[in-house]
Amino acid sequence: MADTFFYSPGIRVSQQLPEQESQHCVKVLRMKEGDKLTVTDGKGFFYPCTLLQAHPKHCIVSIDEEIPRPKSWDFTLHIAFAPTKNIDRIEWFAEKATELGVDRFSPLLCRFSERKELKGERVEKIVVSAMKQSQQAVMPIIDPMIPFRQFVENPFTGRKFIAHCRPDPNKMALAKTCRKGEDALILIGPEGDFSEEEVQQALDLGFEPVSLGENRLRTETASLLACHTIHVLNAR
Amino acid sequence: MADTFFYSPGIRVSQQLPEQESQHCVKVLRMKEGDKLTVTDGKGFFYPCTLLQAHPKHCIVSIDEEIPRPKSWDFTLHIAFAPTKNIDRIEWFAEKATELGVDRFSPLLCRFSERKELKGERVEKIVVSAMKQSQQAVMPIIDPMIPFRQFVENPFTGRKFIAHCRPDPNKMALAKTCRKGEDALILIGPEGDFSEEEVQQALDLGFEPVSLGENRLRTETASLLACHTIHVLNAR
Repeated sequence: MADTFFYSPGIRVSQQLPEQESQHCVKVLRMKEGDKLTVTDGKGFFYPCTLLQAHPKHCIVSIDEEIPRPKSWDFTLHIAFAPTKNIDRIEWFAEKATELGVDRFSPLLCRFSERKELKGERVEKIVVSAMKQSQQAVMPIIDPMIPFRQFVENPFTGRKFIAHCRPDPNKMALAKTCRKGEDALILIGPEGDFSEEEVQQALDLGFEPVSLGENRLRTETASLLACHTIHVLNAR
Repeated sequence: MADTFFYSPGIRVSQQLPEQESQHCVKVLRMKEGDKLTVTDGKGFFYPCTLLQAHPKHCIVSIDEEIPRPKSWDFTLHIAFAPTKNIDRIEWFAEKATELGVDRFSPLLCRFSERKELKGERVEKIVVSAMKQSQQAVMPIIDPMIPFRQFVENPFTGRKFIAHCRPDPNKMALAKTCRKGEDALILIGPEGDFSEEEVQQALDLGFEPVSLGENRLRTETASLLACHTIHVLNAR
Protein backbone atom coordinates (compact mmCIF):
# COMPACT_ATOMS: atom_id res chain seq x y z
CA MET A 1 0.00 0.00 0.00
CA ALA A 2 1.55 3.32 -1.12
CA ASP A 3 2.16 5.60 1.86
CA THR A 4 1.07 8.77 0.13
CA PHE A 5 -2.41 9.11 1.60
CA PHE A 6 -5.33 11.11 0.30
CA TYR A 7 -8.83 11.74 1.64
CA SER A 8 -11.85 11.50 -0.63
CA PRO A 9 -15.18 10.82 1.10
CA GLY A 10 -16.84 9.94 -2.21
CA ILE A 11 -13.95 7.99 -3.78
CA ARG A 12 -15.91 4.76 -4.14
CA VAL A 13 -18.46 6.40 -6.40
CA SER A 14 -16.59 9.30 -8.00
CA GLN A 15 -13.15 7.71 -8.28
CA GLN A 16 -11.89 11.29 -7.96
CA LEU A 17 -9.91 13.33 -5.45
CA PRO A 18 -11.43 16.59 -4.14
CA GLU A 19 -9.91 19.87 -5.35
CA GLN A 20 -7.54 20.39 -2.42
CA GLU A 21 -6.28 16.81 -2.45
CA SER A 22 -5.86 16.92 -6.24
CA GLN A 23 -3.82 20.09 -5.90
CA HIS A 24 -1.62 18.48 -3.24
CA CYS A 25 -1.20 15.38 -5.41
CA VAL A 26 -0.27 17.19 -8.62
CA LYS A 27 1.20 20.55 -7.56
CA VAL A 28 2.98 19.59 -4.34
CA LEU A 29 3.85 15.91 -4.72
CA ARG A 30 4.15 16.19 -8.53
CA MET A 31 2.52 12.80 -9.02
CA LYS A 32 2.06 11.55 -12.57
CA GLU A 33 -0.33 9.23 -14.44
CA GLY A 34 0.38 5.65 -13.40
CA ASP A 35 1.66 6.57 -9.92
CA LYS A 36 0.31 4.56 -6.99
CA LEU A 37 -1.46 6.26 -4.09
CA THR A 38 -3.68 5.30 -1.17
CA VAL A 39 -7.04 6.96 -0.70
CA THR A 40 -9.27 6.74 2.37
CA ASP A 41 -12.98 7.54 2.41
CA GLY A 42 -12.85 8.34 6.14
CA LYS A 43 -15.48 5.65 6.57
CA GLY A 44 -13.13 2.80 7.49
CA PHE A 45 -11.55 1.87 4.17
CA PHE A 46 -8.25 2.31 2.41
CA TYR A 47 -8.22 2.14 -1.39
CA PRO A 48 -4.87 1.49 -3.05
CA CYS A 49 -5.29 3.37 -6.35
CA THR A 50 -3.53 4.19 -9.59
CA LEU A 51 -3.55 7.77 -10.83
CA LEU A 52 -5.30 7.91 -14.22
CA GLN A 53 -5.52 11.67 -14.76
CA ALA A 54 -3.19 14.03 -12.85
CA HIS A 55 -5.59 16.99 -13.02
CA PRO A 56 -4.69 19.89 -10.66
CA LYS A 57 -8.32 20.26 -9.52
CA HIS A 58 -9.89 16.80 -9.90
CA CYS A 59 -7.54 13.87 -10.16
CA ILE A 60 -9.10 10.69 -11.51
CA VAL A 61 -7.94 7.36 -10.13
CA SER A 62 -8.71 3.69 -10.59
CA ILE A 63 -9.34 1.70 -7.43
CA ASP A 64 -7.02 -1.32 -7.39
CA GLU A 65 -8.15 -2.77 -4.08
CA GLU A 66 -10.38 -2.18 -1.03
CA ILE A 67 -8.84 -2.65 2.42
CA PRO A 68 -11.12 -2.42 5.48
CA ARG A 69 -9.44 -0.45 8.30
CA PRO A 70 -11.84 -0.07 11.25
CA LYS A 71 -10.90 2.29 14.08
CA SER A 72 -8.43 0.83 16.58
CA TRP A 73 -10.64 1.36 19.68
CA ASP A 74 -13.86 -0.42 20.59
CA PHE A 75 -15.69 2.32 22.46
CA THR A 76 -17.14 5.73 21.59
CA LEU A 77 -15.13 8.78 22.61
CA HIS A 78 -16.95 12.07 22.23
CA ILE A 79 -15.25 15.27 23.40
CA ALA A 80 -17.13 18.56 23.76
CA PHE A 81 -14.95 21.58 24.47
CA ALA A 82 -15.12 25.37 24.59
CA PRO A 83 -12.63 26.53 21.93
CA THR A 84 -9.86 28.86 23.11
CA LYS A 85 -9.39 32.39 21.81
CA ASN A 86 -6.06 31.32 20.31
CA ILE A 87 -6.92 29.24 17.23
CA ASP A 88 -3.51 27.49 17.22
CA ARG A 89 -4.35 25.85 20.55
CA ILE A 90 -7.61 24.47 19.17
CA GLU A 91 -5.85 23.24 16.07
CA TRP A 92 -3.14 21.39 17.91
CA PHE A 93 -5.73 19.78 20.16
CA ALA A 94 -7.70 18.67 17.09
CA GLU A 95 -4.51 17.29 15.54
CA LYS A 96 -3.32 15.41 18.62
CA ALA A 97 -6.74 14.07 19.54
CA THR A 98 -7.17 12.75 16.00
CA GLU A 99 -3.76 11.04 16.06
CA LEU A 100 -4.79 9.48 19.36
CA GLY A 101 -8.26 8.47 18.27
CA VAL A 102 -11.54 10.33 18.83
CA ASP A 103 -15.01 9.68 17.40
CA ARG A 104 -16.53 13.11 17.63
CA PHE A 105 -15.62 16.74 18.36
CA SER A 106 -18.30 19.16 19.58
CA PRO A 107 -17.22 22.80 19.99
CA LEU A 108 -19.29 24.38 22.78
CA LEU A 109 -20.50 27.94 23.18
CA CYS A 110 -20.43 28.56 26.94
CA ARG A 111 -21.31 31.49 29.15
CA PHE A 112 -17.61 32.32 29.64
CA SER A 113 -16.41 31.29 26.16
CA GLU A 114 -13.67 33.56 24.84
CA ARG A 115 -14.40 32.39 21.30
CA LYS A 116 -17.95 32.75 19.98
CA GLU A 117 -17.43 31.16 16.57
CA LEU A 118 -15.22 28.58 14.95
CA LYS A 119 -14.52 27.96 11.26
CA GLY A 120 -15.25 24.29 10.71
CA GLU A 121 -13.15 24.12 7.52
CA ARG A 122 -9.89 24.98 9.31
CA VAL A 123 -10.41 22.35 11.98
CA GLU A 124 -11.47 19.79 9.36
CA LYS A 125 -8.29 20.45 7.38
CA ILE A 126 -6.16 19.74 10.46
CA VAL A 127 -8.16 16.62 11.35
CA VAL A 128 -7.91 15.24 7.81
CA SER A 129 -4.13 15.63 7.74
CA ALA A 130 -3.77 14.11 11.21
CA MET A 131 -5.95 11.17 10.16
CA LYS A 132 -3.77 10.61 7.10
CA GLN A 133 -0.53 11.13 9.01
CA SER A 134 -1.52 8.55 11.61
CA GLN A 135 -2.70 6.18 8.89
CA GLN A 136 -6.28 5.91 10.07
CA ALA A 137 -9.27 5.42 7.77
CA VAL A 138 -12.07 6.73 9.99
CA MET A 139 -12.73 10.46 9.94
CA PRO A 140 -13.98 11.88 13.26
CA ILE A 141 -17.26 13.81 13.19
CA ILE A 142 -16.75 17.57 13.66
CA ASP A 143 -19.91 19.32 14.83
CA PRO A 144 -20.61 23.00 14.28
CA MET A 145 -20.37 25.12 17.45
CA ILE A 146 -23.43 24.54 19.65
CA PRO A 147 -24.72 26.41 22.72
CA PHE A 148 -23.95 24.55 25.97
CA ARG A 149 -27.56 24.18 27.10
CA GLN A 150 -28.68 22.79 23.76
CA PHE A 151 -25.77 20.34 23.67
CA VAL A 152 -26.20 18.82 27.12
CA GLU A 153 -29.87 18.16 26.44
CA ASN A 154 -28.93 15.83 23.58
CA PRO A 155 -29.21 12.11 24.36
CA PHE A 156 -25.99 10.08 24.72
CA THR A 157 -25.79 6.36 25.43
CA GLY A 158 -22.81 5.94 27.74
CA ARG A 159 -21.14 7.74 30.64
CA LYS A 160 -21.39 11.54 30.55
CA PHE A 161 -18.71 13.55 32.35
CA ILE A 162 -18.19 17.25 33.01
CA ALA A 163 -14.66 18.33 33.95
CA HIS A 164 -15.05 21.56 35.89
CA CYS A 165 -12.76 23.38 38.33
CA ARG A 166 -15.34 24.44 40.92
CA PRO A 167 -15.25 22.87 44.39
CA ASP A 168 -17.46 19.76 44.31
CA PRO A 169 -17.42 16.99 46.94
CA ASN A 170 -18.74 14.47 44.41
CA LYS A 171 -15.94 15.07 41.93
CA MET A 172 -13.84 11.99 41.09
CA ALA A 173 -10.73 11.55 38.99
CA LEU A 174 -11.82 10.57 35.46
CA ALA A 175 -9.11 7.90 35.53
CA LYS A 176 -10.71 6.36 38.63
CA THR A 177 -14.37 6.44 37.74
CA CYS A 178 -14.44 5.55 34.03
CA ARG A 179 -14.08 1.86 33.17
CA LYS A 180 -12.76 -0.12 30.23
CA GLY A 181 -15.14 -0.44 27.30
CA GLU A 182 -17.52 2.32 28.39
CA ASP A 183 -18.62 4.89 25.84
CA ALA A 184 -17.71 8.33 27.12
CA LEU A 185 -18.75 11.91 26.50
CA ILE A 186 -16.57 14.51 28.23
CA LEU A 187 -17.24 18.23 28.57
CA ILE A 188 -14.27 20.60 28.90
CA GLY A 189 -14.94 24.24 29.75
CA PRO A 190 -13.39 27.55 28.67
CA GLU A 191 -10.41 29.20 30.42
CA GLY A 192 -12.94 30.89 32.73
CA ASP A 193 -14.53 27.50 33.50
CA PHE A 194 -18.20 26.56 33.18
CA SER A 195 -20.65 28.84 34.98
CA GLU A 196 -22.29 27.49 38.14
CA GLU A 197 -25.55 27.34 36.21
CA GLU A 198 -23.97 25.31 33.38
CA VAL A 199 -22.47 22.84 35.86
CA GLN A 200 -25.86 22.45 37.55
CA GLN A 201 -27.63 21.94 34.21
CA ALA A 202 -25.18 19.19 33.32
CA LEU A 203 -25.46 17.47 36.70
CA ASP A 204 -29.27 17.61 36.48
CA LEU A 205 -29.03 15.88 33.10
CA GLY A 206 -26.90 13.01 34.42
CA PHE A 207 -23.37 14.26 33.80
CA GLU A 208 -20.83 13.12 36.42
CA PRO A 209 -18.36 15.72 37.77
CA VAL A 210 -14.73 14.71 37.21
CA SER A 211 -11.23 16.11 37.61
CA LEU A 212 -8.26 15.41 35.35
CA GLY A 213 -5.53 15.66 37.95
CA GLU A 214 -3.97 17.90 40.56
CA ASN A 215 -2.58 20.61 38.33
CA ARG A 216 -4.50 23.39 36.66
CA LEU A 217 -4.55 22.63 32.94
CA ARG A 218 -5.22 24.82 29.95
CA THR A 219 -8.45 24.06 28.08
CA GLU A 220 -6.73 22.37 25.15
CA THR A 221 -4.43 20.34 27.40
CA ALA A 222 -7.37 19.19 29.50
CA SER A 223 -9.27 18.24 26.34
CA LEU A 224 -6.45 16.12 24.96
CA LEU A 225 -5.62 14.46 28.27
CA ALA A 226 -9.27 13.64 28.89
CA CYS A 227 -9.29 11.77 25.57
CA HIS A 228 -6.04 10.01 26.37
CA THR A 229 -7.25 8.99 29.84
CA ILE A 230 -10.03 6.98 28.20
CA HIS A 231 -7.55 5.30 25.86
CA VAL A 232 -5.21 4.40 28.73
CA LEU A 233 -8.07 2.89 30.74
CA ASN A 234 -8.97 0.80 27.73
CA ALA A 235 -5.42 -0.44 27.25
CA ARG A 236 -5.52 -2.08 30.67
CA MET B 1 -1.73 34.44 47.68
CA ALA B 2 -1.57 36.86 44.73
CA ASP B 3 -2.03 35.00 41.45
CA THR B 4 0.60 36.94 39.54
CA PHE B 5 3.42 34.39 39.65
CA PHE B 6 7.12 34.95 39.13
CA TYR B 7 10.10 32.59 39.04
CA SER B 8 13.27 33.42 40.92
CA PRO B 9 15.50 30.43 41.80
CA GLY B 10 17.50 32.53 44.26
CA ILE B 11 14.62 34.53 45.77
CA ARG B 12 15.21 33.31 49.30
CA VAL B 13 18.73 34.76 49.38
CA SER B 14 18.61 37.62 46.88
CA GLN B 15 15.02 38.81 47.46
CA GLN B 16 15.20 39.87 43.81
CA LEU B 17 13.54 38.91 40.53
CA PRO B 18 15.78 37.97 37.56
CA GLU B 19 16.01 40.45 34.68
CA GLN B 20 13.34 38.86 32.50
CA GLU B 21 10.87 38.48 35.35
CA SER B 22 11.55 42.03 36.52
CA GLN B 23 10.85 43.30 33.01
CA HIS B 24 7.60 41.36 32.87
CA CYS B 25 6.63 42.67 36.31
CA VAL B 26 7.34 46.35 35.62
CA LYS B 27 7.03 46.80 31.85
CA VAL B 28 4.23 44.36 31.02
CA LEU B 29 2.18 44.10 34.21
CA ARG B 30 3.02 47.67 35.24
CA MET B 31 3.29 46.65 38.89
CA LYS B 32 4.18 49.34 41.44
CA GLU B 33 5.88 49.50 44.84
CA GLY B 34 3.63 47.96 47.47
CA ASP B 35 1.91 45.57 45.01
CA LYS B 36 1.56 41.93 46.09
CA LEU B 37 3.02 39.10 44.00
CA THR B 38 3.83 35.43 44.40
CA VAL B 39 7.32 34.15 43.66
CA THR B 40 8.38 30.51 43.34
CA ASP B 41 11.94 29.28 43.64
CA GLY B 42 11.15 26.21 41.53
CA LYS B 43 12.32 24.12 44.48
CA GLY B 44 8.92 23.49 46.05
CA PHE B 45 8.06 26.83 47.66
CA PHE B 46 5.77 29.76 46.99
CA TYR B 47 6.70 33.09 48.53
CA PRO B 48 3.93 35.69 48.80
CA CYS B 49 5.90 38.94 48.46
CA THR B 50 5.50 42.70 48.44
CA LEU B 51 7.21 44.71 45.70
CA LEU B 52 9.74 47.10 47.30
CA GLN B 53 11.52 48.43 44.21
CA ALA B 54 9.84 48.21 40.78
CA HIS B 55 13.15 48.21 38.88
CA PRO B 56 12.83 47.19 35.17
CA LYS B 57 15.88 44.89 35.44
CA HIS B 58 16.03 43.74 39.06
CA CYS B 59 12.91 44.14 41.13
CA ILE B 60 13.45 43.95 44.87
CA VAL B 61 10.78 42.33 47.02
CA SER B 62 10.17 41.52 50.66
CA ILE B 63 9.12 37.95 51.44
CA ASP B 64 5.91 38.04 53.49
CA GLU B 65 5.47 34.29 53.85
CA GLU B 66 6.85 30.90 52.81
CA ILE B 67 4.39 28.27 51.57
CA PRO B 68 5.68 24.74 50.84
CA ARG B 69 4.20 23.37 47.62
CA PRO B 70 5.68 19.93 46.84
CA LYS B 71 4.97 18.34 43.45
CA SER B 72 1.57 16.70 43.16
CA TRP B 73 2.87 13.24 42.16
CA ASP B 74 4.81 10.76 44.30
CA PHE B 75 6.96 9.08 41.66
CA THR B 76 9.76 10.15 39.33
CA LEU B 77 8.88 10.77 35.71
CA HIS B 78 11.85 11.24 33.41
CA ILE B 79 11.24 11.65 29.66
CA ALA B 80 14.07 11.43 27.11
CA PHE B 81 13.10 12.39 23.58
CA ALA B 82 14.65 13.16 20.21
CA PRO B 83 13.62 16.77 19.48
CA THR B 84 11.74 17.37 16.23
CA LYS B 85 13.01 19.58 13.41
CA ASN B 86 10.08 21.93 14.03
CA ILE B 87 10.88 23.81 17.23
CA ASP B 88 7.21 24.68 17.86
CA ARG B 89 6.42 21.00 18.34
CA ILE B 90 9.13 20.63 20.96
CA GLU B 91 7.97 23.75 22.71
CA TRP B 92 4.36 22.66 22.94
CA PHE B 93 5.44 19.28 24.26
CA ALA B 94 7.58 21.00 26.92
CA GLU B 95 4.66 23.24 27.85
CA LYS B 96 2.06 20.49 28.06
CA ALA B 97 4.32 18.03 29.84
CA THR B 98 5.14 20.68 32.43
CA GLU B 99 1.46 21.50 33.00
CA LEU B 100 0.88 17.78 33.45
CA GLY B 101 3.87 17.18 35.70
CA VAL B 102 7.32 15.89 34.73
CA ASP B 103 10.53 15.68 36.78
CA ARG B 104 13.13 15.74 34.04
CA PHE B 105 13.51 16.36 30.31
CA SER B 106 16.48 14.87 28.44
CA PRO B 107 16.78 15.81 24.75
CA LEU B 108 18.45 12.93 22.88
CA LEU B 109 20.77 13.01 19.90
CA CYS B 110 19.93 9.84 17.97
CA ARG B 111 21.23 8.29 14.77
CA PHE B 112 18.13 9.45 12.85
CA SER B 113 17.63 12.75 14.72
CA GLU B 114 16.43 15.55 12.44
CA ARG B 115 17.60 18.12 14.98
CA LYS B 116 21.23 18.04 16.09
CA GLU B 117 21.10 20.89 18.63
CA LEU B 118 18.57 22.52 20.92
CA LYS B 119 18.72 25.92 22.62
CA GLY B 120 18.11 25.20 26.29
CA GLU B 121 17.06 28.79 27.05
CA ARG B 122 14.03 28.67 24.74
CA VAL B 123 12.77 25.44 26.25
CA GLU B 124 13.42 26.72 29.76
CA LYS B 125 11.41 29.86 29.04
CA ILE B 126 8.43 27.75 27.97
CA VAL B 127 8.77 25.43 30.96
CA VAL B 128 8.97 28.33 33.43
CA SER B 129 5.81 29.94 32.08
CA ALA B 130 3.96 26.60 32.05
CA MET B 131 5.05 25.95 35.65
CA LYS B 132 3.74 29.37 36.68
CA GLN B 133 0.55 29.04 34.64
CA SER B 134 -0.27 25.68 36.23
CA GLN B 135 0.62 27.07 39.66
CA GLN B 136 3.35 24.60 40.44
CA ALA B 137 6.44 25.38 42.52
CA VAL B 138 8.80 22.66 41.32
CA MET B 139 10.82 23.38 38.19
CA PRO B 140 11.57 20.31 36.06
CA ILE B 141 15.24 19.61 35.26
CA ILE B 142 16.08 20.33 31.61
CA ASP B 143 19.23 18.52 30.48
CA PRO B 144 21.40 19.66 27.58
CA MET B 145 21.14 17.45 24.48
CA ILE B 146 23.02 14.19 25.01
CA PRO B 147 24.06 11.43 22.57
CA PHE B 148 21.77 8.36 22.84
CA ARG B 149 24.54 5.89 23.71
CA GLN B 150 25.88 8.10 26.50
CA PHE B 151 22.40 8.66 27.92
CA VAL B 152 21.25 5.04 28.12
CA GLU B 153 24.44 4.09 29.95
CA ASN B 154 23.53 6.42 32.83
CA PRO B 155 22.13 4.68 35.91
CA PHE B 156 18.41 5.06 36.73
CA THR B 157 16.63 3.59 39.73
CA GLY B 158 13.20 2.57 38.44
CA ARG B 159 11.62 1.08 35.31
CA LYS B 160 13.30 2.01 32.04
CA PHE B 161 11.23 1.93 28.86
CA ILE B 162 12.00 2.46 25.19
CA ALA B 163 9.03 3.25 22.93
CA HIS B 164 10.08 2.19 19.45
CA CYS B 165 8.09 1.35 16.32
CA ARG B 166 10.07 -1.69 15.12
CA PRO B 167 8.44 -5.14 15.22
CA ASP B 168 9.23 -6.68 18.61
CA PRO B 169 7.42 -9.70 20.11
CA ASN B 170 8.33 -8.59 23.64
CA LYS B 171 6.75 -5.16 23.25
CA MET B 172 3.95 -4.39 25.71
CA ALA B 173 1.59 -1.43 26.05
CA LEU B 174 3.16 1.04 28.50
CA ALA B 175 -0.28 1.34 30.12
CA LYS B 176 -0.29 -2.40 30.77
CA THR B 177 3.23 -2.99 32.04
CA CYS B 178 3.95 0.07 34.20
CA ARG B 179 2.46 0.05 37.70
CA LYS B 180 1.32 2.65 40.17
CA GLY B 181 4.10 4.28 42.20
CA GLU B 182 6.96 3.09 39.98
CA ASP B 183 9.62 5.60 38.94
CA ALA B 184 9.76 5.66 35.15
CA LEU B 185 12.22 6.71 32.47
CA ILE B 186 10.81 6.65 28.95
CA LEU B 187 12.74 7.02 25.67
CA ILE B 188 10.92 8.47 22.65
CA GLY B 189 12.66 8.37 19.28
CA PRO B 190 12.85 10.74 16.31
CA GLU B 191 10.37 10.73 13.41
CA GLY B 192 12.62 8.13 11.73
CA ASP B 193 12.52 5.99 14.90
CA PHE B 194 15.50 4.64 16.85
CA SER B 195 18.04 2.67 14.83
CA GLU B 196 18.12 -1.10 15.30
CA GLU B 197 21.47 -0.67 17.03
CA GLU B 198 20.08 1.93 19.44
CA VAL B 199 17.13 -0.30 20.33
CA GLN B 200 19.51 -3.18 20.97
CA GLN B 201 21.81 -1.05 23.12
CA ALA B 202 18.83 0.01 25.25
CA LEU B 203 17.50 -3.53 25.60
CA ASP B 204 20.98 -4.76 26.60
CA LEU B 205 21.02 -2.10 29.32
CA GLY B 206 17.70 -3.17 30.82
CA PHE B 207 15.22 -0.96 28.96
CA GLU B 208 11.84 -2.61 28.33
CA PRO B 209 10.27 -2.22 24.85
CA VAL B 210 6.83 -0.59 24.97
CA SER B 211 4.16 0.73 22.62
CA LEU B 212 1.88 3.70 23.27
CA GLY B 213 -1.14 2.52 21.34
CA GLU B 214 -2.39 1.34 17.97
CA ASN B 215 -1.98 4.53 16.00
CA ARG B 216 1.23 5.96 14.65
CA LEU B 217 2.01 9.07 16.73
CA ARG B 218 4.25 12.04 16.06
CA THR B 219 7.33 12.26 18.31
CA GLU B 220 5.95 15.11 20.40
CA THR B 221 2.54 13.49 20.75
CA ALA B 222 4.12 10.20 21.81
CA SER B 223 6.30 12.05 24.33
CA LEU B 224 3.37 13.82 25.95
CA LEU B 225 1.10 10.78 25.98
CA ALA B 226 3.85 8.63 27.49
CA CYS B 227 4.06 11.10 30.39
CA HIS B 228 0.30 11.19 30.76
CA THR B 229 0.03 7.40 30.73
CA ILE B 230 2.18 7.30 33.87
CA HIS B 231 -0.02 9.90 35.56
CA VAL B 232 -3.20 8.02 34.67
CA LEU B 233 -1.81 4.75 36.03
CA ASN B 234 -0.99 6.56 39.26
CA ALA B 235 -4.45 8.04 39.59
CA ARG B 236 -5.95 4.55 39.79
